[in-house]
Amino acid sequence: MVAGPLAIIAGSGNLPLEIGSAALEAGHSIYMVGLVGNADPSIEKFPHIWVKFGELGKLFRQLAIWECRDLIIVGGVNRPHFSEIGFDLGAVKSVPNLTRLLKGGDDNVLNGIVAFFESHGYTIVSPVDIAAQLSASIGHVGSIKESEGKSIDYGFSLLGAMAPFDVGQAAVVIDERAVAVEGIEGTDLMLERIADLRSIGRLRTRGRAGVLVKAPKRGQNMKIDLPTIGPRTIALAIEAGLSGIAIAAGGVLIVERKQVIEKANEANLFIVGKQWTVMTASAGGM
Amino acid sequence: MVAGPLAIIAGSGNLPLEIGSAALEAGHSIYMVGLVGNADPSIEKFPHIWVKFGELGKLFRQLAIWECRDLIIVGGVNRPHFSEIGFDLGAVKSVPNLTRLLKGGDDNVLNGIVAFFESHGYTIVSPVDIAAQLSASIGHVGSIKESEGKSIDYGFSLLGAMAPFDVGQAAVVIDERAVAVEGIEGTDLMLERIADLRSIGRLRTRGRAGVLVKAPKRGQNMKIDLPTIGPRTIALAIEAGLSGIAIAAGGVLIVERKQVIEKANEANLFIVGKQWTVMTASAGGM
Repeated sequence: MVAGPLAIIAGSGNLPLEIGSAALEAGHSIYMVGLVGNADPSIEKFPHIWVKFGELGKLFRQLAIWECRDLIIVGGVNRPHFSEIGFDLGAVKSVPNLTRLLKGGDDNVLNGIVAFFESHGYTIVSPVDIAAQLSASIGHVGSIKESEGKSIDYGFSLLGAMAPFDVGQAAVVIDERAVAVEGIEGTDLMLERIADLRSIGRLRTRGRAGVLVKAPKRGQNMKIDLPTIGPRTIALAIEAGLSGIAIAAGGVLIVERKQVIEKANEANLFIVGKQWTVMTASAGGM
Repeated sequence: MVAGPLAIIAGSGNLPLEIGSAALEAGHSIYMVGLVGNADPSIEKFPHIWVKFGELGKLFRQLAIWECRDLIIVGGVNRPHFSEIGFDLGAVKSVPNLTRLLKGGDDNVLNGIVAFFESHGYTIVSPVDIAAQLSASIGHVGSIKESEGKSIDYGFSLLGAMAPFDVGQAAVVIDERAVAVEGIEGTDLMLERIADLRSIGRLRTRGRAGVLVKAPKRGQNMKIDLPTIGPRTIALAIEAGLSGIAIAAGGVLIVERKQVIEKANEANLFIVGKQWTVMTASAGGM
């Protein structure tokens, strides 16, 4: 339970704002910490500061002023190269092993960030715990054909097989064949690839076909790295000629849910939340 | 053992020609069957005919004239949509279930093609059996750092986990993280993606880094769908900033081997053939 004020360390996108609003509605005091070059300027409608990568001293001082020990870290981040980060004195003093944080796969980095803040006495709070209504539940919007149901199961099996590896958390499946698997390009670029492959004739189907399947990977840090879908996912899925989207219930955040559902319904694109039980790194499980 | 004349059903690329030449050197009589719109015009240096998709009657008649019962099927194919194929009388008579061939994933289609020809009394011969010198053996060209060795093992483990699924057979691994996984776009476009991700700053490494790992998938039909690398793979791996290529020994054909090795050496790119034991659909195993 979060009793005191909550600081949201905000990367790019709308999610920090949505979570901020949901937390505010739930009665929390909210402060925003905007990551320069990443966070949306609209975070300024909350009490806020802006920090650059490496300005940990400035961050810690402000959190002390706000008397804030609970943090949400959310939003996209263009991770700068280590050599480009300007460290302030607070950062230099507090992170003898900061280099380790910025090496290796996402999982290592993110777990390292959580461990780093926790070692300084902060608690990292999962957005799901503050704004549970943002995550997908079991059920569906739109209708699903039997063959699509098989492709969905196939996709979740593939993601399950890949879960032990530090690799993407999404795939596009058509007729029980994985036509695309996500790497570091992310879900958006993977969907654009499907549209491209269709336009050059490398992927042909009779009408719309294919399901985007998305789930957390094993060990994924659900406190700070929740998989998401949003209106852009819907738009790209439509451009890619897909028939629907299947996501792990409780494991994927839906950003701008109202708009997502409207857009999906308009385009006759189904969205389904399926039970999914891969082990993640969230304290409370999924 | 192939005693009589051998017909090579030739899709795109140089491989049909290379295999033709290697088979000729090994003392076989060679005929070429060029797939219109796919095969290289150079196949005409062999005794040949050209056929379109669906001209099975024409193909069977010519094979009878050549007294040819052993076939190699090799090279890339732009699979036409079913509605675009013109079937001749021979095709209509001999394939009541042809529609099934053109549905589903690659594996189903390819196994179906093999089964189809075999049901008509032909033997599909693996290129490896005719031109074993074309496939990679265990060993390496260039030097491999310990960290790269770990990434290679990681990549083969990932391909092993994905092998039961009908999905790509290659990945790019950097520091034990899979940054790209191959779908239907194929190895070339996956490597172009890596170059693109570098150019937009989504992938940053200190100098060249990353290994292309490639292997057959489980159930892959080694008679008719051998994974390959060639000079273009080397060029794209260099553009993608990789440090090397790891392939399954005995399971991946090296097209234009001399040029491949020269190019790799020039660019200081390693190539390693590793033992790999996934179960494929080849009669003789790998």
